[in-house]
Amino acid sequence: MKISVVPAYKTFPGRWLSAVDRTPFHVEYVKKKLDMNKKQEVRLLKKFTKGIGVYGAEITIKGFSGYLCELLIIAYGSFTNLITQAANKWHPPVVLDIENHYGGNVKEIIKKFPHSAMIVIDPVDKLRNVAAAVSHRSLVTFISACRCFLKHPSINFFYPKPRKISLERDLKRHGSIIAIVFSHEPQIEDILYPQLERLARSITNKLIEYGFSPIRWSAFSDYKKLSTIFIELESETIPPVHVHMGPQFVTGTHELSFIRKNLQLNYFLWIDEDGRWKSIRKRKFVKVTDALKEILKLEEIIPRSLRKILIEKPKVIGIDEIKRQEKLRKLLIDFITPKEFWIEECINENPSE
Amino acid sequence: MKISVVPAYKTFPGRWLSAVDRTPFHVEYVKKKLDMNKKQEVRLLKKFTKGIGVYGAEITIKGFSGYLCELLIIAYGSFTNLITQAANKWHPPVVLDIENHYGGNVKEIIKKFPHSAMIVIDPVDKLRNVAAAVSHRSLVTFISACRCFLKHPSINFFYPKPRKISLERDLKRHGSIIAIVFSHEPQIEDILYPQLERLARSITNKLIEYGFSPIRWSAFSDYKKLSTIFIELESETIPPVHVHMGPQFVTGTHELSFIRKNLQLNYFLWIDEDGRWKSIRKRKFVKVTDALKEILKLEEIIPRSLRKILIEKPKVIGIDEIKRQEKLRKLLIDFITPKEFWIEECINENPSE
Repeated sequence: MKISVVPAYKTFPGRWLSAVDRTPFHVEYVKKKLDMNKKQEVRLLKKFTKGIGVYGAEITIKGFSGYLCELLIIAYGSFTNLITQAANKWHPPVVLDIENHYGGNVKEIIKKFPHSAMIVIDPVDKLRNVAAAVSHRSLVTFISACRCFLKHPSINFFYPKPRKISLERDLKRHGSIIAIVFSHEPQIEDILYPQLERLARSITNKLIEYGFSPIRWSAFSDYKKLSTIFIELESETIPPVHVHMGPQFVTGTHELSFIRKNLQLNYFLWIDEDGRWKSIRKRKFVKVTDALKEILKLEEIIPRSLRKILIEKPKVIGIDEIKRQEKLRKLLIDFITPKEFWIEECINENPSE
Repeated sequence: MKISVVPAYKTFPGRWLSAVDRTPFHVEYVKKKLDMNKKQEVRLLKKFTKGIGVYGAEITIKGFSGYLCELLIIAYGSFTNLITQAANKWHPPVVLDIENHYGGNVKEIIKKFPHSAMIVIDPVDKLRNVAAAVSHRSLVTFISACRCFLKHPSINFFYPKPRKISLERDLKRHGSIIAIVFSHEPQIEDILYPQLERLARSITNKLIEYGFSPIRWSAFSDYKKLSTIFIELESETIPPVHVHMGPQFVTGTHELSFIRKNLQLNYFLWIDEDGRWKSIRKRKFVKVTDALKEILKLEEIIPRSLRKILIEKPKVIGIDEIKRQEKLRKLLIDFITPKEFWIEECINENPSE
């Protein structure tokens, strides 16, 4: 067991000096609102969210904090009522203002916390969204799991069975998977993980620019010396050519510069049925490994603070090598193991529906 | 020389009984408006449009008829003035009402002849668009050629030099090319060619549905026994999987049916960062030849009147076989020979611009 001692200022609501100054007020509020029965309900909710993988506000989970779980039970009275409401009524963004700080003005709340999947106004601080950490993915995961649970309640939601996949068989239903491996000095999760996410997004965006079709990605790290980004694509190779559209019919100047540019590159160009100039362009990269090597060389692609702790150049690793390396093989299994395990129960055991 | 004798009704403007009844009135109108000098200008325009491949209203050209050329000179006074105006002022749809039948109401004219790239009101019949045959491609071709001619006037526009391409070298700048060959009984151009065009469009649309990326196509026929559709694609093969988006977050019902369907097919599915269900689907076809064989079997794909004259099943032929067969090889050369030859002159000989 690990105990963290976190210092806080003793202050008044609304006059916060540090991030944890609210905690004593949270404790007090929750104590006042939750009796023994409801505390049981909170425990159930925590176990449920943990089971489906959305418990915890940390950056790798982006889910429901303990305090948020408490507030949800305070608001909905019971676990069963909460998940029934979530299953049937919740729609992102989910807005909850338990102490009615905003007098029912949902629009104002949404304007105040834009881009949030879920907004739960802190009863002790109207300027704080307790659910700020909850991602769209976590919220939809929760709602979907609630729906499935209602159709087919099962202990498995709270105590998920260990899932086994067969690597070779499961890979058959996937696209091409590659890994980018970073060796680096130790770095804490809160700093490193968002950088890996940002990097993964930049890389996949670049791949799209180059004509590749990334499907999904995941970032993993031991935070000591090794981080890995897995990327799944429709294919490791793309056709060597693609159509490039000329400018919409506007002026002779645009037309001429399009023609000149394409002729100089010896591209085939023509006026198509729709009256638009088009050309057949060569792709810069046909293989994703070549594209990635180039992308990783780009000055701005790797966030600076990650760049600073890198011990060697990032390595691009194909599926065969991934399977050979024990560590990568384990991450690969994680990468292709469905996280939304409950859907199988929900569907398969209700064949009549 | 071939002379066609076409019978017509002798009638009055506006009381047309057959398509050619207007002809005597056209002849009369043109006679009245064109002096010897202007007739020279008409000859120049006809030669110019012929040179750049847009002379003739027939279905395979979709260009400028002789009468349209005459009207354009009547309207603009001279070849030079016409092409200067076309180069600088024309913008599809081009509208011209020489005898001012519509009192300058361009909107009404466009409403009356929607989808037309070019509308030239017949001086002897306000209900007829003399330029109805002109396609977007022909119009833009004409405008582009006018622009290039003004930058670099040359006899080559009127007497194009025979173009030579090197098959092997030129193929390098293209995607994958396949041919579909139809053996059939004789059929006239006016009936057969539009059917081949319609078929080519249906086929490419189906290919897009199946995930392929057609770039361009052309239809050829000897109208005696053989027709061929050439299709160029980014690639002959596509990745075996692609991402399928689940329904936007709406109701549990849609969600459940998406989940059930994908699970039954053993597709990998997950909730993505954006909170949306997605799945990795298998493609029905990976090779374009397989897709085409299936497409050509579809009941409705081949227009009925073409189906009726087919002597045997259509054949799908790859690039190697195309190159081996003399006839197909010639069509292939036509298919990859740039038709907009003048752009090379226009650009290359003005390197300073």
